[in-house]
Amino acid sequence: MRNIRMKIAYDGTRYNGFQTQPGGNTIQDVIESALETLTGARTRIVGSGRTDARVHAEGQVFNFHTESRIAVERWALALNSRLPEDIRVVETAAEVPDDFHARFSAKRKTYRYSICIGKFHDVFRRNFEFHHPSPKLDVDAMREALLRLQGEHDFTSFTTNHADEKSHVRTIYSAELRVEDRRLDLYWTGNGFLYNMVRIMAGTLIQVGQGKIGEAAISDILHGRNRLLAGPTAVAHGLTLVDVDYGESDEE
Amino acid sequence: MRNIRMKIAYDGTRYNGFQTQPGGNTIQDVIESALETLTGARTRIVGSGRTDARVHAEGQVFNFHTESRIAVERWALALNSRLPEDIRVVETAAEVPDDFHARFSAKRKTYRYSICIGKFHDVFRRNFEFHHPSPKLDVDAMREALLRLQGEHDFTSFTTNHADEKSHVRTIYSAELRVEDRRLDLYWTGNGFLYNMVRIMAGTLIQVGQGKIGEAAISDILHGRNRLLAGPTAVAHGLTLVDVDYGESDEE
Repeated sequence: MRNIRMKIAYDGTRYNGFQTQPGGNTIQDVIESALETLTGARTRIVGSGRTDARVHAEGQVFNFHTESRIAVERWALALNSRLPEDIRVVETAAEVPDDFHARFSAKRKTYRYSICIGKFHDVFRRNFEFHHPSPKLDVDAMREALLRLQGEHDFTSFTTNHADEKSHVRTIYSAELRVEDRRLDLYWTGNGFLYNMVRIMAGTLIQVGQGKIGEAAISDILHGRNRLLAGPTAVAHGLTLVDVDYGESDEE
Repeated sequence: MRNIRMKIAYDGTRYNGFQTQPGGNTIQDVIESALETLTGARTRIVGSGRTDARVHAEGQVFNFHTESRIAVERWALALNSRLPEDIRVVETAAEVPDDFHARFSAKRKTYRYSICIGKFHDVFRRNFEFHHPSPKLDVDAMREALLRLQGEHDFTSFTTNHADEKSHVRTIYSAELRVEDRRLDLYWTGNGFLYNMVRIMAGTLIQVGQGKIGEAAISDILHGRNRLLAGPTAVAHGLTLVDVDYGESDEE
């Protein structure tokens, strides 16, 4: 069996998230059904991780095993011609070693949470960013709070109570806040993220920007290991999975 | 009667264009019905011009006469709370002299035609730009052709045959091509545009970029005054009405 890896972008607006679930209408379902028409065989894909309903991806990665002999350079176009317009393969496929697993082999992931500041939301980006109607967000305080989330921490306060991971310790290698016109983007790159972790960090930072939480309180929130200490979970549609890194860049 | 002017942005994807028509589902219909709930009176708006189905606006302008005493600074938020998410008032309303007419008083308009270059379209901008799948577009030739469209010309070759305007002479004050990553934007500012003129100019420039029309042929196409000489009408969804200028900036 060959092991094929692909990178996709999707507008998650009309889907119930990435991963197959009883309610159907997931990105995984759509891709598996496109792969079945393409290869003639029921094919199961493994994503680098779930994304929730209305969450987007610029660089989600999945892999699958197949008997198909389609040449590596033909997969992307062949699959794209069978996918709806809001899901797109964005790179030439790669044939990878048999033990490559899109989830377990991932070394780093980068997420972005996008905020539109101002009286009126942007009609063209309304599904891709959270609209904050007041211009009064203290960006310096947010940047300071963001720095305090960097590094290795127990992120229990930043995940939903019933998360089933054994350890809540994760490392955020870098965190960045970018402002351009009315748009504020929060970026996090880390070795892994707990369920809802990015959205809770974003919701907490928004409260820091609003002056409801002091930037220095971030350390107390981390140490408290209690979801109730952090801010609310920011709305899903502001979140985008930007990239998944498998460590190849280290070899360059 | 007061005369009120407003500026709106809209994602034209799901509408049959700006102006009321028998098929319904137009942006004008939606705004007039929101104004009716707001003021209690049937209200007719006048736009700066039509935009076709799937065409967008960042700065469309309309005006309307009303007996309503709503304060000028309250109109925008009050109307926005009654509009769907894909139509948004983007500036505080203005009370204007009785003879102000959004169409006849307009001095200049700016349109943008957006093209995405590359194998895969951008899922987040798929409704807002034309996707050109081959990277081989000769940008220099397009820029040269764009310059030849600047100035005062008879644009008969760049409008549909049955346009009912008396004169086909228009002036393009400035034309610009901007490239950023995979995105190519064509901008035109002029004193007016004939029906389909921007889309035909865009379709012609794309053929220049593809090498199907030489950049020097633009002058012959203009002089020929024949729609058949120009390139095809580019798809509607790449077009955006960026701004309408009423000459106030001259007074600054």
